[in-house]
Amino acid sequence: MSRLKMGMVGGGPGAFIGAVHRLCLAMDGEFELVAGAFSSDAAKSRETGAELGLDPVRVYGSWMEMAADEAALPEGERIDCVSIVTPNHVHHGPAIEFLRRGFPVVCDKPLTISSALAEEMRAAVASSGKLFVLTHNYPSYPMVREARELVRGGAIGRVRKVYAEYLQGWLADKLEDTGQKQAGWRTDPARSGPGGSLGDIGTHAFHLLEHVTGAQVTRLMGQRTSFIEGRAVDDDAQVLFELDNGANGTLACSQVCVGRENGLRLRVFGTEGAIEWDQEHPNDLLVRWKDRPAELRRTGNGYLGESAQSLGRIPPGHPEGYLEGFANLYRSAARAIRSEADLEDACPTVDDGCRGVRFIEKVIESSEARAWVEFDG
Amino acid sequence: MSRLKMGMVGGGPGAFIGAVHRLCLAMDGEFELVAGAFSSDAAKSRETGAELGLDPVRVYGSWMEMAADEAALPEGERIDCVSIVTPNHVHHGPAIEFLRRGFPVVCDKPLTISSALAEEMRAAVASSGKLFVLTHNYPSYPMVREARELVRGGAIGRVRKVYAEYLQGWLADKLEDTGQKQAGWRTDPARSGPGGSLGDIGTHAFHLLEHVTGAQVTRLMGQRTSFIEGRAVDDDAQVLFELDNGANGTLACSQVCVGRENGLRLRVFGTEGAIEWDQEHPNDLLVRWKDRPAELRRTGNGYLGESAQSLGRIPPGHPEGYLEGFANLYRSAARAIRSEADLEDACPTVDDGCRGVRFIEKVIESSEARAWVEFDG
Amino acid sequence: MSRLKMGMVGGGPGAFIGAVHRLCLAMDGEFELVAGAFSSDAAKSRETGAELGLDPVRVYGSWMEMAADEAALPEGERIDCVSIVTPNHVHHGPAIEFLRRGFPVVCDKPLTISSALAEEMRAAVASSGKLFVLTHNYPSYPMVREARELVRGGAIGRVRKVYAEYLQGWLADKLEDTGQKQAGWRTDPARSGPGGSLGDIGTHAFHLLEHVTGAQVTRLMGQRTSFIEGRAVDDDAQVLFELDNGANGTLACSQVCVGRENGLRLRVFGTEGAIEWDQEHPNDLLVRWKDRPAELRRTGNGYLGESAQSLGRIPPGHPEGYLEGFANLYRSAARAIRSEADLEDACPTVDDGCRGVRFIEKVIESSEARAWVEFDG
Amino acid sequence: MSRLKMGMVGGGPGAFIGAVHRLCLAMDGEFELVAGAFSSDAAKSRETGAELGLDPVRVYGSWMEMAADEAALPEGERIDCVSIVTPNHVHHGPAIEFLRRGFPVVCDKPLTISSALAEEMRAAVASSGKLFVLTHNYPSYPMVREARELVRGGAIGRVRKVYAEYLQGWLADKLEDTGQKQAGWRTDPARSGPGGSLGDIGTHAFHLLEHVTGAQVTRLMGQRTSFIEGRAVDDDAQVLFELDNGANGTLACSQVCVGRENGLRLRVFGTEGAIEWDQEHPNDLLVRWKDRPAELRRTGNGYLGESAQSLGRIPPGHPEGYLEGFANLYRSAARAIRSEADLEDACPTVDDGCRGVRFIEKVIESSEARAWVEFDG
Repeated sequence: MSRLKMGMVGGGPGAFIGAVHRLCLAMDGEFELVAGAFSSDAAKSRETGAELGLDPVRVYGSWMEMAADEAALPEGERIDCVSIVTPNHVHHGPAIEFLRRGFPVVCDKPLTISSALAEEMRAAVASSGKLFVLTHNYPSYPMVREARELVRGGAIGRVRKVYAEYLQGWLADKLEDTGQKQAGWRTDPARSGPGGSLGDIGTHAFHLLEHVTGAQVTRLMGQRTSFIEGRAVDDDAQVLFELDNGANGTLACSQVCVGRENGLRLRVFGTEGAIEWDQEHPNDLLVRWKDRPAELRRTGNGYLGESAQSLGRIPPGHPEGYLEGFANLYRSAARAIRSEADLEDACPTVDDGCRGVRFIEKVIESSEARAWVEFDG
Repeated sequence: MSRLKMGMVGGGPGAFIGAVHRLCLAMDGEFELVAGAFSSDAAKSRETGAELGLDPVRVYGSWMEMAADEAALPEGERIDCVSIVTPNHVHHGPAIEFLRRGFPVVCDKPLTISSALAEEMRAAVASSGKLFVLTHNYPSYPMVREARELVRGGAIGRVRKVYAEYLQGWLADKLEDTGQKQAGWRTDPARSGPGGSLGDIGTHAFHLLEHVTGAQVTRLMGQRTSFIEGRAVDDDAQVLFELDNGANGTLACSQVCVGRENGLRLRVFGTEGAIEWDQEHPNDLLVRWKDRPAELRRTGNGYLGESAQSLGRIPPGHPEGYLEGFANLYRSAARAIRSEADLEDACPTVDDGCRGVRFIEKVIESSEARAWVEFDG
Repeated sequence: MSRLKMGMVGGGPGAFIGAVHRLCLAMDGEFELVAGAFSSDAAKSRETGAELGLDPVRVYGSWMEMAADEAALPEGERIDCVSIVTPNHVHHGPAIEFLRRGFPVVCDKPLTISSALAEEMRAAVASSGKLFVLTHNYPSYPMVREARELVRGGAIGRVRKVYAEYLQGWLADKLEDTGQKQAGWRTDPARSGPGGSLGDIGTHAFHLLEHVTGAQVTRLMGQRTSFIEGRAVDDDAQVLFELDNGANGTLACSQVCVGRENGLRLRVFGTEGAIEWDQEHPNDLLVRWKDRPAELRRTGNGYLGESAQSLGRIPPGHPEGYLEGFANLYRSAARAIRSEADLEDACPTVDDGCRGVRFIEKVIESSEARAWVEFDG
Repeated sequence: MSRLKMGMVGGGPGAFIGAVHRLCLAMDGEFELVAGAFSSDAAKSRETGAELGLDPVRVYGSWMEMAADEAALPEGERIDCVSIVTPNHVHHGPAIEFLRRGFPVVCDKPLTISSALAEEMRAAVASSGKLFVLTHNYPSYPMVREARELVRGGAIGRVRKVYAEYLQGWLADKLEDTGQKQAGWRTDPARSGPGGSLGDIGTHAFHLLEHVTGAQVTRLMGQRTSFIEGRAVDDDAQVLFELDNGANGTLACSQVCVGRENGLRLRVFGTEGAIEWDQEHPNDLLVRWKDRPAELRRTGNGYLGESAQSLGRIPPGHPEGYLEGFANLYRSAARAIRSEADLEDACPTVDDGCRGVRFIEKVIESSEARAWVEFDG
């Protein structure tokens, strides 16, 4: 089985997530990076291409050029897929362009910076007939898969309560004023879109809760805050929500929770049991039961569901981390691309992306109105 | 030092909390139970009195009778204090009566079933000049005291975020239909007041967060739910709130979180650090710092603040639990009674009780209006 | 039911464990302290008696005097039982004297300071026909009871491995030179006996492992160390052992493990499952299974065995700690005294005490010989 | 920077660790696998080579052939390094052959199956002047590096106690009778050498404790057991040991601890502090202090030592696992190979390998003699 040829948009010097994508797409030998437009600055793009040992001919000064030139290459030589890892405002353009030229797209989240643009992307996916994978990576952890099967399969009964949170502390000071690149674009509405913490981490928590429960938020009451004076986007939000299955819950995301690293946590309570998962110790899944002791399920064990087992690489007790989880998503994408089949059930899609953008907008709308809003999305 | 003579209202056959109070008031040898009106059923009251080995003369058929008869006893013989451990609707009557007759009162929470009654109790305390202690027991854990000193003393900087939750699962089915006494009165609005979970556990979480931060809730947006069909009170609530110091946060209380036992947890994030405390492992306090490793502070150690140290009985590593925490509250009450002094700073008062009742009412008001409300209490 | 009258030997000013015993014997209303010889210094004994509000007539200057005088009191007035909480070298004398005069005895561990004396105590128990309870308190925690039932009942299959440890750090410096009373007698072989850490904490770990498994150590290889220069007893020991059921394991006890508080932990692995318990979080019992997820069993739940349930006082999630565990032992003792029946299966006896003293001696013998020794005791 | 060309010996169909090595050597783009003798069965070797997409010319039927043919290739084309991932009895042959021909060697642990062979390997390394890296991978976790710096740098004072353990449960039944390949060779003394659990996991624990403390075991008292009837090697061992710095401790390794996955844990106590690390949650390092709260240090934070920081790839809170740790070792090896410099201080060497083999032999010798033995290695 030969490797799929991948191209990348974004991920130039100083990017964090680009390097993660490169490591993860290569981890299981499914993809090989052969082309890239790593920066809107052609010199920087070449610099990254050279560091990665790419053929200079396939290192482009812009994604427009890359899309055109790659499409012109003969089949078998041109890229099989593109991965878009730019700041949020540069998802829409390349995604539509590459889809239009017939390339499957892997794209970072949030999908884009407005629902209008999101709908254009949804339409482009539909009209292209090509695969589109949104890199909400957390569902690809084995124990999230296990949680999802337990919840959706009814093991914990009807869902009543959902508590989702994503707490970080790295923006507790005005880091964007120091020239730190990650903080820079994430706090600039022109590049991040209207949501700060909402887009960066809130959408992960939102997606995770809908993904695991199989339910959809129908109404929400949100409040977003910029705790840092002069910051142009929210660095914190808290939300009450109702789900279409009668459950309700809370979602909190914050980037000013001093001392917290990457605290994404989901708890779902049903009529018969509950699940509890914490991204910082991702190989543990606590499953509570009504009249029995809680269970600790762990990655890699034979007692897990088939789907969770399929996501492990090494025996139980050998911790798999963030990169392995992320690589699972690329592995799923590769399978879908190879089979020209539908995306695996567990791969986030453009529809998930549209809901995520809508989530940001709805929390903002609710926060400004200080009122409940319908989530008609 | 002779023991203070205690009388009890409530705590008859089948009561849970009455036995806890008796055990805790006696634990440190500060009080001795000498009298009681343990039930509104005189036979049951006598039954409990006999089990406890009390002089039958001091076992009463009603709290009215007890207040009158005890007041008529000579000083040195009559009770020094009364503890009211009845269901919520029977706090107001005896509290006012005993205060009126000059007895200090220890009273279970929530204070009573409406703000109107609560204000009458506040007035009675004021006019009597007697001590009134509300048994919000959780602040008397040593590590809550430590948390409070850290937060109020400024060690974690200015407070930005507060997450409070109190999750239980014991009412996830309709236990009140089985004749279970605890479930019976707690789900009967005539006895519990308008709040179910809100009164029973939500007020604990609310009090704890204000107590530790020293800030007050000024606005809230609440949603309460009865997940069990036919249940007359809420068994779940979730609340967004703003504090008078510019912080905001969430509060969740639930009695339908299957598998949860007594999950009271508080997290407070400031500009420089954070505290995290979980009642189920009460001797651990996690303290996070901005650019330093998190610390694990533990009951009984010499590095704790003086106040936290004063609440321990045994060396570090010898776990102190719920009963010891509760007994600390009685120990503080004893000191205040003996000194005829003001209540210790850490003893919840009638004012805390009034705020708690107001909290219940405000969440209900907000929930019904589906709108933010001012907490003008 | 009237309270049993208790007398105490030891527990004068500055004692730690005497106060614990007093608190625990009174906690459940089974005993009432009425007499004591709290110190070998009569003035100090009176001081403590006065603080405790005892009738001065029943506060004695020596245990000899107390035994004689109490025995001379009429039945119904004299003590029903005596609790001996002195340093190790003053267990043998009073125990034999009170037994001889017909009093049931509760006695602190280790039983005494040599096997010769221990055998005299065993003989005295036998000839008196009176109850003798050794206060190895840890087996009285509910979750240790649950562990024992699981292990002895065969739920985890045949036992193969046992890891016991008891790690403290409080003697990591030469505290005995500072006048600290607890450190003083514990490091003085004349008062503690030949074992330091071995007697103080090693015997707890040793008893716990035999108690939970129902097996007996048959051979051991021990090494004891005094890490602090000039310390006259061991402050650390480590032991390999074999059990009579074919299992083997390790035991470590140390009082120089800086930062550790009271780290008693037991792990038992069988052919089908395993248990793991840690005294510092005593309400959690981890139960591992061969091909199933591990379970977390917690104090107070209905899914526990009957015996474990009988040891709880309050609902699940309300932590019970060291004092409640210790009080459970007194409650068991009270039941045995009242019924004039055999000790409950779970109460440590003089036979356990003899084994504990033998354990100390055998580890010392093995350590000095640097050789395996038979545990013929 | 071009990738180093790697060849592999072993890692054919059904191997677990071969695939891990391939994934980890490629993870950071330092190495590229170009050649292999994956099995002693030429057909199987070709099968694996094909799966990996290697040039068939560089897929060999034996390591002898591979060593000869690769050496004959021109520089720049031939491999830069070989990785030996065969069962223990096939380390010695290829290692010496490849060293002799001038290739740096990465070799799995334990080094080999006897001290005599180990010394031949040591001599071969010396005479070749080539790099030799033994894949004790656990020291390459960031938090083990942090622990090592704290301990060796004196932050916790003089070391007194060391507790090392490595507990697994996967061999609790006679898995080797089922045809399971991993169990097969590991329980066959002809292939594993005389130690079973001792070689497979005991050497990891032994290496880790010496690596972190910088001290060497000078004497030990060991006991090894085969709990499974008919098993030809030990599946469990427990050891007391003394270190050359005056400390002592225990080491336990077992593969019959039902329910345990990959429980490698190290605790080191010094005069001022202590460290505690558990491989199953590798991003947490607990650091205890004498009179201060314990600290929780976590991978990726700026407060860590430089060396620990250099081993992370992603921000704090994004868990790095077993594969990342293992890849760190390959990254270190690549740097050493490129610089033609000495191995980095943290890379295990042939000397470590000799000590590991000696450790196995000494525990066996002690176990058979039931006596302490000098560790003269």
